Amino acid sequence: MGFVQHGGRMSPIANITRLSSLCLLSLLLLGCSTPRPGGLMQVATIDALLAGVYDGHMTLRELRTHGDFGLGTFDRLDGEMVFLDGTFYKVQGDGTVVRPPNSETTPFAAVTWFSPSRKMEIKSPKDGKGLENLIDRLVPDQNLFCAFQVDGTFKALRVRSVPAQTKPYIPLAEVTKNQTVFDFANVKGTLVGFRSPAFVKGINVPGYHIHFISADRTQGGHVLSLSLTEGVLEVDSKIEWLKVFLPSENRAFAEANLSKDRSEELQSVEQE
Amino acid sequence: MGFVQHGGRMSPIANITRLSSLCLLSLLLLGCSTPRPGGLMQVATIDALLAGVYDGHMTLRELRTHGDFGLGTFDRLDGEMVFLDGTFYKVQGDGTVVRPPNSETTPFAAVTWFSPSRKMEIKSPKDGKGLENLIDRLVPDQNLFCAFQVDGTFKALRVRSVPAQTKPYIPLAEVTKNQTVFDFANVKGTLVGFRSPAFVKGINVPGYHIHFISADRTQGGHVLSLSLTEGVLEVDSKIEWLKVFLPSENRAFAEANLSKDRSEELQSVEQE
Repeated sequence: MGFVQHGGRMSPIANITRLSSLCLLSLLLLGCSTPRPGGLMQVATIDALLAGVYDGHMTLRELRTHGDFGLGTFDRLDGEMVFLDGTFYKVQGDGTVVRPPNSETTPFAAVTWFSPSRKMEIKSPKDGKGLENLIDRLVPDQNLFCAFQVDGTFKALRVRSVPAQTKPYIPLAEVTKNQTVFDFANVKGTLVGFRSPAFVKGINVPGYHIHFISADRTQGGHVLSLSLTEGVLEVDSKIEWLKVFLPSENRAFAEANLSKDRSEELQSVEQE
Repeated sequence: MGFVQHGGRMSPIANITRLSSLCLLSLLLLGCSTPRPGGLMQVATIDALLAGVYDGHMTLRELRTHGDFGLGTFDRLDGEMVFLDGTFYKVQGDGTVVRPPNSETTPFAAVTWFSPSRKMEIKSPKDGKGLENLIDRLVPDQNLFCAFQVDGTFKALRVRSVPAQTKPYIPLAEVTKNQTVFDFANVKGTLVGFRSPAFVKGINVPGYHIHFISADRTQGGHVLSLSLTEGVLEVDSKIEWLKVFLPSENRAFAEANLSKDRSEELQSVEQE
């Protein structure tokens, strides 16, 4: 459209100049833009979070150099993170949503450059299990990660958030006993989720992990249950590596008991 | 020494020219050299190897862009890999050592840019447990990785290697029932090892994993037991991330059962 609006015929030399400028610009952009390999980057481990390692150790400024899509939490476990289209949203313990500054930090997050290779309309209602089954049919290989988002209308959605903690920190399973749960009816918005292979047990959440942000960006949280009316599902299954940043300078991380099996704690934390 | 050998006084201009050339050369080298962040890169997962996923899916050419130090195995489980000072050694099933071409592939390997921050002489004899205790005292944080090497003289060393497999592949714990074991006495050489945190269970080997190559590069293998007379230990504990490459195009990997607990299989494979 730009060329048409500028109108008129251009001389061959002007054409070449314009083309050269475009090529140069493209090269510059290529040179400057962040590479977007198909991988999942995560900060610390889910078991460290379960153990109460809540102090943030990567800024959002740094985190966004690793992706534009993901989920997690914030320094001191201050709310649920939704990272969508390069924008961070923080669903606070009271349910309100703010856009945190780049200087904020996270003790646990998983992000990717979201490049969906599959897109499909969902026209019939689906509960959480129905949505998982659909994604499993699209990406049957359970040893691979996938990232997905669903833009849709939800007949019902139950989410939770958690308030910022103070030291001495208590384990996550203790915090979530007093989590605030919000029930939404007939809400429009986006699910941001990952499906992770079983072998990430201890490091990330095996299976499905989904956060939500409403279309008007005023509501959201960690999804406990959902009833989707209709929507559009996009799936990125080209996640060819997992990179785990270890907070080596963090004494709480270094000293946490990360050798015990925390599967039951995780289940109690992730679900209702 | 170079300047002295070339001898003679240089004019100021020649000096500047030479300095400029050196600066330019340094910049070029800096620009071309691979960055060396302190992380551990691994190909696939140990549980996939235990499950019999032996087809290689990363070339040594690519692997060496991720480090200069490490261990692993080769396509079809063809021997034990020792990666030392940027050189790959393959200890074959019959115990002979060859230098594999860059075109060879690996189904499982872990590598890093070895940058030891600690170096100490070991003057009193140590068995395997004694060596582990020593490293644990140097790097007490069990939730962090460390890479280490020991150049030394070994009173006794028991290693194993495995022969290349043919399809249909059998699980690693079956292969190692018929592993070839070699006992060396009074041998000089280098241990190449990693200590990995408990939370990598299923992905890498929790605890210690050590390979050996003799000083004359004719003997080596996966270390089963050791008795060190004396040597020099170097430890790199600045490993701030773990990156796991997932062979997404590999059907055997995609279809392997990676959800079961293979700790016992791993123990039978790693030890005597």
